[in-house]
Amino acid sequence: MILASLPEGRDGALRIVAPDRATATRAGAATFRALLDGASDAAAGGPEPFDIARCGAPLPRTGQFLDGSAYVNHVELVRKARGVPMPESFWTDPLMYQGCSDPFLGPADPILTDPTWGTDFEAEVAVVTGDVPLGADIDTARAAIRFVLLLNDVSLRGLIPDELGKGFGFVHGKPPSALAPLAVAPEALPGWDGDRLNATMCIDLNGAPFGRLDAGRDMTFGFPELIAHAARTRPLAAGTVVGSGTVSNKGADGGPGRTVADGGAGYACLAEQRMVETIRDGKPSTPFLKSGDRVEIWMEDAEGRDLFGRIAQDVKARSET
Amino acid sequence: MILASLPEGRDGALRIVAPDRATATRAGAATFRALLDGASDAAAGGPEPFDIARCGAPLPRTGQFLDGSAYVNHVELVRKARGVPMPESFWTDPLMYQGCSDPFLGPADPILTDPTWGTDFEAEVAVVTGDVPLGADIDTARAAIRFVLLLNDVSLRGLIPDELGKGFGFVHGKPPSALAPLAVAPEALPGWDGDRLNATMCIDLNGAPFGRLDAGRDMTFGFPELIAHAARTRPLAAGTVVGSGTVSNKGADGGPGRTVADGGAGYACLAEQRMVETIRDGKPSTPFLKSGDRVEIWMEDAEGRDLFGRIAQDVKARSET
Repeated sequence: MILASLPEGRDGALRIVAPDRATATRAGAATFRALLDGASDAAAGGPEPFDIARCGAPLPRTGQFLDGSAYVNHVELVRKARGVPMPESFWTDPLMYQGCSDPFLGPADPILTDPTWGTDFEAEVAVVTGDVPLGADIDTARAAIRFVLLLNDVSLRGLIPDELGKGFGFVHGKPPSALAPLAVAPEALPGWDGDRLNATMCIDLNGAPFGRLDAGRDMTFGFPELIAHAARTRPLAAGTVVGSGTVSNKGADGGPGRTVADGGAGYACLAEQRMVETIRDGKPSTPFLKSGDRVEIWMEDAEGRDLFGRIAQDVKARSET
Repeated sequence: MILASLPEGRDGALRIVAPDRATATRAGAATFRALLDGASDAAAGGPEPFDIARCGAPLPRTGQFLDGSAYVNHVELVRKARGVPMPESFWTDPLMYQGCSDPFLGPADPILTDPTWGTDFEAEVAVVTGDVPLGADIDTARAAIRFVLLLNDVSLRGLIPDELGKGFGFVHGKPPSALAPLAVAPEALPGWDGDRLNATMCIDLNGAPFGRLDAGRDMTFGFPELIAHAARTRPLAAGTVVGSGTVSNKGADGGPGRTVADGGAGYACLAEQRMVETIRDGKPSTPFLKSGDRVEIWMEDAEGRDLFGRIAQDVKARSET
């Protein structure tokens, strides 16, 4: 099953998208949230023409977004660039923060910047769960995964260090994230292995390839582990979004890898490329996002087929809006 | 206007409560969320008998709960007990974390404990906002306050230090919070001064007075400041809940105050009493919550009238459920 939402009202207008994406039908549930709450996912009415370019976020708002850092390689690189060793526990105890889930931006909504914010993207895979009981084990968590999403976790690097120092997580450093148009059920994703999505995470910055990463590789914690971690002391209500954190691949030599231009897999955020530059050159040379930049994020299966549609966001100065 | 919700469905069934609380009417909006989204707040139908004991949380789920630490006295005490100086910036830059907003527990739902969790209550005032634009100033923030709530921010002290060390905020340390039955509009609260609620926060533990605090005093940041802080890099959608953090009063001598039994205002969480014991005796003597304990939280105006109804939660071991 593939779902999308037209940008009507606060929760969008749900459509069930045909596998060829040429048509879509209404569902018994008027919104994705209603479907997650238990309303019918049966088609209601006949097929209508479907234009993916008209879609907003498939889930424009929900009760909870818990974002893990499953690609520990990314965390290790951040630490290395700061000259701080990474605790061994990070390989077994995931980092996770609660981010903004109301709203989620649509795939073509602008990213707002301020020159002091250090604006960055983070290309992530995410899942939407059904109800997950308090203290769920890994198998219960796995069974609760209902849909897979593609997400841009917009991150304000200039504001994050202060918030890390306070220890209370990110309120300023993590503004609303954007979602790609399609929410896809695991059974409609051949690369889904129950724990991870084996597919290529593609990022272009201003039309040039920035990342071509294997999302199924180097993901230390699978989604069931992230969900079980999140549910340790709270039940997760249906509609909870759990994110993978920035996708990140080690290089062939086990090191931080190379840019796409240099024959590597590249990176899924500017910060990681800047860290590699810092480790190599003593300082970063890649700038953060500025007004006029364009970020495109999509995923492809092994045959090069698009999975979720495309996030394509233009960067605008806050004062331009 | 006073609102309450009967515990039906995921969003509850909205009722407009008469000032005498003897009757209530249905509203044009079927749920509090729908009302916040813009559905009619006009009465629909005639008055029906109202039993506050039948109410669930007025807002059983919403898109965002941002909890500040507005009573900096509380933060200073925590630090003092740990022997760590508090940065001066904490007097001007509020601590704030994003907590669980789906679900909010009902006023009589149990608090689940595990002996290793160090379970505590935190009695807080909270507000529900309308839509707040990105970068809202203090006056815009003040005008966006739609309802006031009473909240128990259940806190797992045994799990918080590790999460503070990770810097990503609280996922395990802050399970779902409970709400008192009534959501009250500012104009129906004579003690509301636009920024703070001047009323007494009452806490009983196992039937004995634990706190009788002045919620309008020692609140370094008013709600408009907390809302503007939250909206610095994200718009706040209608239905956002912003919390005050644990209410805390200084003693008459400017020190940490005394217990209610000792003639003081007492405390709004166990941790604070434990801190005072630690500063005084070198170690805490008040235990955290254990199975069989009962926590009651309510607020009274200057004439002793109840404002929000009562949170009355029994503590249960996780294994008992």
